[in-house]
Amino acid sequence: MKIAVDAMGGDFAPKAIVEGVMLAQKKHPEIEFQLYGKEDAIREYLTNEKNITIIHTDEKINSDDEPVKAIRRKKTASMVLAAQAVKEGKADAIFSAGNTGALLAAGLFVVGRIKGIERPGLMSTLPVLNGDQGFDMLDLGANAENKAEHLHQYAILGSFYAKHVRGIAKPRVGLLNNGTEETKGSELTKEAFKLLQAEESINFVGNVEARELLNGVADVVVTDGFTGNAVLKTIEGTAMGLMSLLKGSINDAGVKGKMGALMLKDTLYGLKDKLDYSAHGGAVLFGLKAPVIKTHGSTGPEAVANTIDQIHTMLETDVVGQLVQFFETQKGE
Amino acid sequence: MKIAVDAMGGDFAPKAIVEGVMLAQKKHPEIEFQLYGKEDAIREYLTNEKNITIIHTDEKINSDDEPVKAIRRKKTASMVLAAQAVKEGKADAIFSAGNTGALLAAGLFVVGRIKGIERPGLMSTLPVLNGDQGFDMLDLGANAENKAEHLHQYAILGSFYAKHVRGIAKPRVGLLNNGTEETKGSELTKEAFKLLQAEESINFVGNVEARELLNGVADVVVTDGFTGNAVLKTIEGTAMGLMSLLKGSINDAGVKGKMGALMLKDTLYGLKDKLDYSAHGGAVLFGLKAPVIKTHGSTGPEAVANTIDQIHTMLETDVVGQLVQFFETQKGE
Repeated sequence: MKIAVDAMGGDFAPKAIVEGVMLAQKKHPEIEFQLYGKEDAIREYLTNEKNITIIHTDEKINSDDEPVKAIRRKKTASMVLAAQAVKEGKADAIFSAGNTGALLAAGLFVVGRIKGIERPGLMSTLPVLNGDQGFDMLDLGANAENKAEHLHQYAILGSFYAKHVRGIAKPRVGLLNNGTEETKGSELTKEAFKLLQAEESINFVGNVEARELLNGVADVVVTDGFTGNAVLKTIEGTAMGLMSLLKGSINDAGVKGKMGALMLKDTLYGLKDKLDYSAHGGAVLFGLKAPVIKTHGSTGPEAVANTIDQIHTMLETDVVGQLVQFFETQKGE
Repeated sequence: MKIAVDAMGGDFAPKAIVEGVMLAQKKHPEIEFQLYGKEDAIREYLTNEKNITIIHTDEKINSDDEPVKAIRRKKTASMVLAAQAVKEGKADAIFSAGNTGALLAAGLFVVGRIKGIERPGLMSTLPVLNGDQGFDMLDLGANAENKAEHLHQYAILGSFYAKHVRGIAKPRVGLLNNGTEETKGSELTKEAFKLLQAEESINFVGNVEARELLNGVADVVVTDGFTGNAVLKTIEGTAMGLMSLLKGSINDAGVKGKMGALMLKDTLYGLKDKLDYSAHGGAVLFGLKAPVIKTHGSTGPEAVANTIDQIHTMLETDVVGQLVQFFETQKGE
């Protein structure tokens, strides 16, 4: 099992990335890591060189680079070389905490789509607040526009992931809509509803509303990339806003507030943990020939290690291989 | 100033509605209220009959009625009679806590659109967490689909509201998008961006992301009804989910948790108040010939009174009249 790591992507690279790889290595000593980036800088944080290969390059993609241009012009950037390794079969998956748009472009143009998949989608496992399982949602913004057929494919992709990677036997698939009734929605969701209802390989539970997402109304939620992006950012904004409001008013409440907060320490930490969906790993650009995984740029070593855990499970269960087979069989029907 | 009130709409009608009217009456004794619904049931909660007229009807629209059918078939329903009164000039505005879809239909088909407005939008003033002012967002779901020209009109409508009703001199108008860069977005938002940029009557501040909404990134945010609906419900779901998680884990923490919570009582109440956007009034179906206002079905007397406050300001500032004039002038250009 070989993972190509863009060691230079993210706000705290290469430190956080390499430290995360070191953590992951303890848990999965059999994984062979290829670290792409500045050799000196990477070596500084290496504590163990077993199964580690460094592929030196001075070039990297910055967070403000225009994605498609960056991929085409910076041919020796750490992210591009890592994607290239996957394309050439030298690595089985790619991990980066760098420029999201550039990783999407590298995934599409270098790694390439699974035959039959029209528009790979960005998928994350988001938290369910009153339970331990999260839910998988896609597309979270790889596309600015989608057709009903794309949503249909997202339902299949999400189901495969929930089943194989997360071990949910019969994942409930919901369609994000503006009401739960069958007749509700835009032209897009009405058409998608029909396709999902007719799809025998999934367990479609109908329309779901955004209000119910964090209550675990479904194991997989499909939507177009524009809406998915807005919903994800709204969850983040609302949660962060509330947490900072809570923190602010605890401080304003002086000694009494601080004592109260101390007594509620576990509660408040629990709240924060619950919201931190990096425990479930990173975002998958799903529908490509190999796992292409992104974590937040501000990610620390633990989140990097969690994401490598996720990649490990994706490779071990061969979820992508199974998808390739599914879509090939479909085509032959 | 005459307000037609659907006294039978909402989970706690007519009690909550009539009690809310009684509260509002104390603040605005000059408002003439027309209460539509069962006379006996209404009269039970009347504490003062000054400037109150009851228009008796036995029929009402239920929360599960199919909206358009209900409006067409239940000709003497309290909501329909109230809308009819506005149409005939017997009342200046209509208020209901009943079936949202039916109120939208009554607004469109009975009260009627302002000449030049293609698709009225549903607008609420949502909370800004670190400030006292909220922001107005539309369309929150009156339409399942919108064209760029509709978003253009929403920007004008929202600006008028923020300026006249909320007293913001030069309201900052943002376009909800999947990135802040000018080139970002779907076909719809790219086209809307150009229209908003060219519109001289507004203060367009560019694209805004959902993550920043509750931080007060703009005073008015425009989006299509599908996305707006998803964002509003995501805010509600995330906020409610977090509050209930917080409550649950305070209970689980036993005596220590309860003591901590007691010390943080003001903080926790403040959080709840901040999220309760009914303080700013109800949702306006904006773009109609008169104010058509909806509050949550589960609304209590205080929220009813707040909403009547809002209607009072809308009528006093004649925001609808100003819009009529604006769109007439535009047409003449």
